[in-house]
Amino acid sequence: MSSTPIAVFDSGLGGLSVVRHLRQILPREDLVYFGDTARVPYGIKSRPTVAQFALETAGFLLSFEPKLIVAACNTASALAMDDLRRELPVPVIGVVEPGARAAVRLAEGDPLAVIGTEATIGSEAYRRAIRALAPEQPVVPKACPLFVPLVEEGRDCNDPIVKLTVETYLAPLRAQHVKVVVLGCTHYPLLRDAIGSYLGPEVHIVDSGRETSLAVRQHLREHGGLSTDGTPGSMRCYVSDNPQRFEQVGSRFLTEAIEYVELVEPERYVNVPRLPSTAK
Amino acid sequence: MSSTPIAVFDSGLGGLSVVRHLRQILPREDLVYFGDTARVPYGIKSRPTVAQFALETAGFLLSFEPKLIVAACNTASALAMDDLRRELPVPVIGVVEPGARAAVRLAEGDPLAVIGTEATIGSEAYRRAIRALAPEQPVVPKACPLFVPLVEEGRDCNDPIVKLTVETYLAPLRAQHVKVVVLGCTHYPLLRDAIGSYLGPEVHIVDSGRETSLAVRQHLREHGGLSTDGTPGSMRCYVSDNPQRFEQVGSRFLTEAIEYVELVEPERYVNVPRLPSTAK
Repeated sequence: MSSTPIAVFDSGLGGLSVVRHLRQILPREDLVYFGDTARVPYGIKSRPTVAQFALETAGFLLSFEPKLIVAACNTASALAMDDLRRELPVPVIGVVEPGARAAVRLAEGDPLAVIGTEATIGSEAYRRAIRALAPEQPVVPKACPLFVPLVEEGRDCNDPIVKLTVETYLAPLRAQHVKVVVLGCTHYPLLRDAIGSYLGPEVHIVDSGRETSLAVRQHLREHGGLSTDGTPGSMRCYVSDNPQRFEQVGSRFLTEAIEYVELVEPERYVNVPRLPSTAK
Repeated sequence: MSSTPIAVFDSGLGGLSVVRHLRQILPREDLVYFGDTARVPYGIKSRPTVAQFALETAGFLLSFEPKLIVAACNTASALAMDDLRRELPVPVIGVVEPGARAAVRLAEGDPLAVIGTEATIGSEAYRRAIRALAPEQPVVPKACPLFVPLVEEGRDCNDPIVKLTVETYLAPLRAQHVKVVVLGCTHYPLLRDAIGSYLGPEVHIVDSGRETSLAVRQHLREHGGLSTDGTPGSMRCYVSDNPQRFEQVGSRFLTEAIEYVELVEPERYVNVPRLPSTAK
C-alpha cells in the first residue's frame, strides 16, 4: 500500500495550493490530482450538487487505487465530507478539520475568523469543527466571494482592486480584533500578503492546505502508509476541461511547473458506477 | 405553432436580463427558461465543453416543443452557435448577431468596443459578426472577468469596488474614444449606470439582450409565429441547481418576481438522447 499514490481532488485548480504543501512535506509520495474544471466553481452551489460532483470527481481517482484521498476543496470538505467518507472505500482527509484544529490552538480563546466561499461559510462547517474542539471559542465567519475570481484573473497582492476588496471584506475582522484568520478556500493563500498586511503582523494566518498536508503525513505514519521508495514522488494531473488554462494558471498555485495534465471526458467520471478499489 | 412557447436557455441566471426585454417586447408570448446553475459559469470554459453543456441545456427545452430557442448566453452564442443550429430541430437565435448589428449601425465607422467574459472575448465571435457586416469597422475587445461575480454578489453601481473595477477595465476604451460599447454578457446590464457614467453620455451602450428580443419579434413576424392569444404570456423557469438562489438573485435581472422555478435533476438533461420535437 505504501507505494500506491495519494489522490487529491478539487473543483478546479485551487487544490494545487494544497498539493504544493504535500509535495514539500511528503516529497517521496506519488500524487494524482483531478480538478473538475468543467463544473468549477463549487462555492456557489447547493449541498446535493456539490456532494454529487465531489463523489464523481473522487470516484474517478479510485481507478488509481490510492491509499488515501484528499478533498483539497474547502467547499467539498464543508458540504460533502460525510458523503465522501460513507461512499469511498479509502480514507478521506478534508481541509476543514486540520484548519480548524490549528486555528483553535493559535487563538487560545481569543476571537478567530474563517473566510471562504459563499457555500463554505453558509454551511457553517468550520464553526461546527471549531466548536467540537473548543465549545466557547468565538468565531467570526466571513464570505469573500470576489477573492476567487481576483486570483483566477492573475491579480496580485499589490493590485488596487485586490487591496480595496481585502479592506472591504476584512474591516469587520479588524474591528473585532481577531487573533487568527483561517484561509478557508484554496485560492486564498495567493492573497496571503494582502490579507496579512491589512490585518497586521500580530494576526496569525492559517493555511488549511498546509495543515491538511501535515494531517496526511500523520495519518500515513500512524497507518504505516508512508512511501518507502527513496526517489522523488511523481505528480500526474487530470482535469475535466481546459488543460492549457489549468497548466498556465495552476503553476502559480503550485509554485512549480505542471508537467503532466490529461483531459478526462465526461464518460469517465459523470454517473460512472463506482470502480473496485483498495480496501479501507 | 404560434401558441407554443419561446424557450430560453443560459448558463445560469444572467439570461433573465434577456427575458426581461422579451417580456416587454413580446408580452403575449409564453416563455420557458432553463438556467444551468449546476455548471455555471460557462465563461471560463473551453469550446467543446461549452458546446456540450449548451446542447444539453437547450436539449432539455425541446420537451416543451418550443417554436424558437433563444441562446440567452453570450458565451454559448459565441462558442456554440454552429453546433446549436446544426443539432436542434427548431430555429435558434443567439445574442451575438443582434448585438453586433446594432453596434455597427450606431458606430458609423468610429471605434466600437465589445466587453464580455474571457471565453466570449477569446472566441472573437463578436469581432467576426461585426466584420461580416462592416469589414473596416474598428473593434476594441475587452474581457472583464470580475463583472459577473460583482453582479452576482449584489454590488450595485455605487459600490466602490464596482467603480474601481469599471475604471480599471474601461480605461483603454476611453483612451481610444470608442463611440459604442456592446454589453457582451447578460450580467453587464446591471452595471450599465456605472459603465455609462465612466464612459460619458456621448457613448452608446448596446444591450445585446434588448437587440435579441427585437430580433426574436422580427423572426416570429416574418414566419407567422407570433402568439394570437390575447392573454399575458406565462413564464416557467427551470434550473439545474439551487432554485432558491435563482429566485432571489434572478429577480434583480428580471426586475420582477420569479413565480415558478423547478429543479431539474441531471438525469433529465445530462447525456439524454435528443427528444423528438417540432419540425424546423
